Amino acid sequence: MATRDGRGDDEDVSALLDGLRIIEGSAFVAAPSGGMTLSQLGADVIRFDPIGGGIDHKRWPLTAAGRSFYWAGLNKGKRSIAVDIRNAEVRELISALVTDAGTFLTNFPAKGWLSYEALSENRSDLVMVAITGNRDGSTALDYTVNSAIGYPLVTGPVGGAEPVNHVLPAWDLICGQTAAVAVLAADRRRLREGIGASMSIALFDVALAAISALGHVGEAQINNEERSRYGNDLYGAFGAEFKTADGRRLYAVGISPRQWASLLEATEAADDVAEIESRRELDFADEGDRFRARAEISAVMQVWIGDRSLADVSARFDGLGVCWGPYQSFGELVRNDPRCSIDSELFRQIDQPGIGSYLVPGSPVSLDGVLPIEPVAAPELGAHTDEVLSEVLGLSSAEIGRLHDRGLVDGPASL
Amino acid sequence: MATRDGRGDDEDVSALLDGLRIIEGSAFVAAPSGGMTLSQLGADVIRFDPIGGGIDHKRWPLTAAGRSFYWAGLNKGKRSIAVDIRNAEVRELISALVTDAGTFLTNFPAKGWLSYEALSENRSDLVMVAITGNRDGSTALDYTVNSAIGYPLVTGPVGGAEPVNHVLPAWDLICGQTAAVAVLAADRRRLREGIGASMSIALFDVALAAISALGHVGEAQINNEERSRYGNDLYGAFGAEFKTADGRRLYAVGISPRQWASLLEATEAADDVAEIESRRELDFADEGDRFRARAEISAVMQVWIGDRSLADVSARFDGLGVCWGPYQSFGELVRNDPRCSIDSELFRQIDQPGIGSYLVPGSPVSLDGVLPIEPVAAPELGAHTDEVLSEVLGLSSAEIGRLHDRGLVDGPASL
Repeated sequence: MATRDGRGDDEDVSALLDGLRIIEGSAFVAAPSGGMTLSQLGADVIRFDPIGGGIDHKRWPLTAAGRSFYWAGLNKGKRSIAVDIRNAEVRELISALVTDAGTFLTNFPAKGWLSYEALSENRSDLVMVAITGNRDGSTALDYTVNSAIGYPLVTGPVGGAEPVNHVLPAWDLICGQTAAVAVLAADRRRLREGIGASMSIALFDVALAAISALGHVGEAQINNEERSRYGNDLYGAFGAEFKTADGRRLYAVGISPRQWASLLEATEAADDVAEIESRRELDFADEGDRFRARAEISAVMQVWIGDRSLADVSARFDGLGVCWGPYQSFGELVRNDPRCSIDSELFRQIDQPGIGSYLVPGSPVSLDGVLPIEPVAAPELGAHTDEVLSEVLGLSSAEIGRLHDRGLVDGPASL
Repeated sequence: MATRDGRGDDEDVSALLDGLRIIEGSAFVAAPSGGMTLSQLGADVIRFDPIGGGIDHKRWPLTAAGRSFYWAGLNKGKRSIAVDIRNAEVRELISALVTDAGTFLTNFPAKGWLSYEALSENRSDLVMVAITGNRDGSTALDYTVNSAIGYPLVTGPVGGAEPVNHVLPAWDLICGQTAAVAVLAADRRRLREGIGASMSIALFDVALAAISALGHVGEAQINNEERSRYGNDLYGAFGAEFKTADGRRLYAVGISPRQWASLLEATEAADDVAEIESRRELDFADEGDRFRARAEISAVMQVWIGDRSLADVSARFDGLGVCWGPYQSFGELVRNDPRCSIDSELFRQIDQPGIGSYLVPGSPVSLDGVLPIEPVAAPELGAHTDEVLSEVLGLSSAEIGRLHDRGLVDGPASL
């Protein structure tokens, strides 16, 4: 485990998940992101894929040469083995890896040789997390969960009639983190009580739990009320989009008393906003009243912001501790924002085999004020096939050679 | 811990996080959702709040009487204590709770009496996770992260010029799960090595890590290309919105070969789509080519779907295993979808004090094929003040009474 400069020699401090090995049989976002999170905290995550790559190996966005930024992004720090998973002998090898590791994370159907029953035969304390679409095993992806969960009908401009999907695969990412939680929760019980766990998590249930947590289910059921579209306005408090004199856009928020006060001060809006408050007989100490008067409040602040460049607004807002952010594209973020650069400890400029040198983040979890583990690239598909067969399963070079000769396993060279 | 019928008597099976106690000092979404996730897996999570409630206690959506669905949704299963956190004596009580529990999750500023240094004075193996906006400690909320991270400029209709925020506080939810991961990862090291951990997680870093994982940073940096807006189309493969004869909308996806084949079969589109493939000299075995021809492919499928009601389409799609979902509002979801009802094991119809009886979910993590822990409501603010002071800190009734008399602590009755 490569630790940051000045920490690598400290024998007393090991990575949080040192000694945890996880086998991952996965594709797409949820399971891979969960495994990567654990890898970036120090676990040894070994992902197996079919020879030539799984269904997500060429998932967009791609480089000009057809390599997947997505696959590279979701598999950083793992070890990769490429095997013919249809072959019975290979399945025994994967089962042996799971037996050795004791922990298995997957979004493949947990049936047959990949069932908990089969995999725990030689490892009674196996911890396994299987991610599914719906809890009944039927298929659902982030996109179809999203359409059914309610958000596309409240996203987008006020008065719009068309559903607007969010582009971020949020449900997958939340589910992936939940899967990582489940792995560690079950591992905790195993450490204390010596027993395993057969777990599954349905993507649709994750989304249902989230919208319930945020109050949408209660609002629909008890208030019997459909949420309207509020465009980019922050529901129930004050948050709005503004335009600057140089044609940029920004978002500013006043939820806490301090945020609200600093936004009023920064935009010299206190008097005019007090006039609105008085005239409309509202109390802007109540965030709901700010929401009710948001159009008038925004209009006042827009006058001040619209007279100034983003740079001038930024300097004043930052000086007064306003909670705000510019709107920026992915390109602008990468080109201009120091938080997304090698000036941030989160990133290193790293060579990703087959793709090139670009910004690669590590775990966002800091320890003692630093991000302890160096960001690393994703492996080439099959980069660790021989190493894992040899070191983990104890196969000899001759045995590994025969597996290659029969086309049952593959390394990166022939890809 | 209330377990599901038929499991409660099994003394051998404890909840995954049995014995883990966490003190939570929090507001809004990220930290509370992380704490709730751990609570719903069996941890004893004690949230402290100011008397009368913290800054999120009246966060919208609200009932007609002004009670927050949001607060109730994000604090299910926790114990709640209400205290005067400005008082030095109370701060010592909270510190004593943290010392007892050994684990502290917060999004309050981790300074002064809430610093790791201060809180670990009597508990050298303290595990603490502090969530911040930016890593430098400056403020950022989900909304301002979102504007700066790139998605609003690729969300919404093709050709649109306005930024479109997604409404789901996705970064908060992802961050909350990451915080739960961090708690358990550090607890694992503590169980094995006896040492604590002072951790922090910046919301902006969580978002940066996510967009890097999905390939947006690489695409911007290496391809030097801004992602366009693709409306509701699934980027890089086939997924699209359709309208039915009865005016409903649905989303259908064909990423895997099986999904693609079943969608073609279900919509009787195979011949026409093969004609498109041949005429445009594309290969629809390549998901990227499906994306390139998505407008023509959708048009063919729309003819079949547009001739039928949602009920008819649904029956055929489900019969053939198509990956699809209807568009539905939160209200439609709650009224019509059995997955969001007491027919689902995820939910119980539960009385939430002050709000009423509604659908409350538990953890989406199933164990041995069942969701093991009964869903429970959120506490009333301060419902456990006396219980925690007595049972955890060992204060006498007289001591607790004096704290009440001096207005330093409060229970639910006087609220």
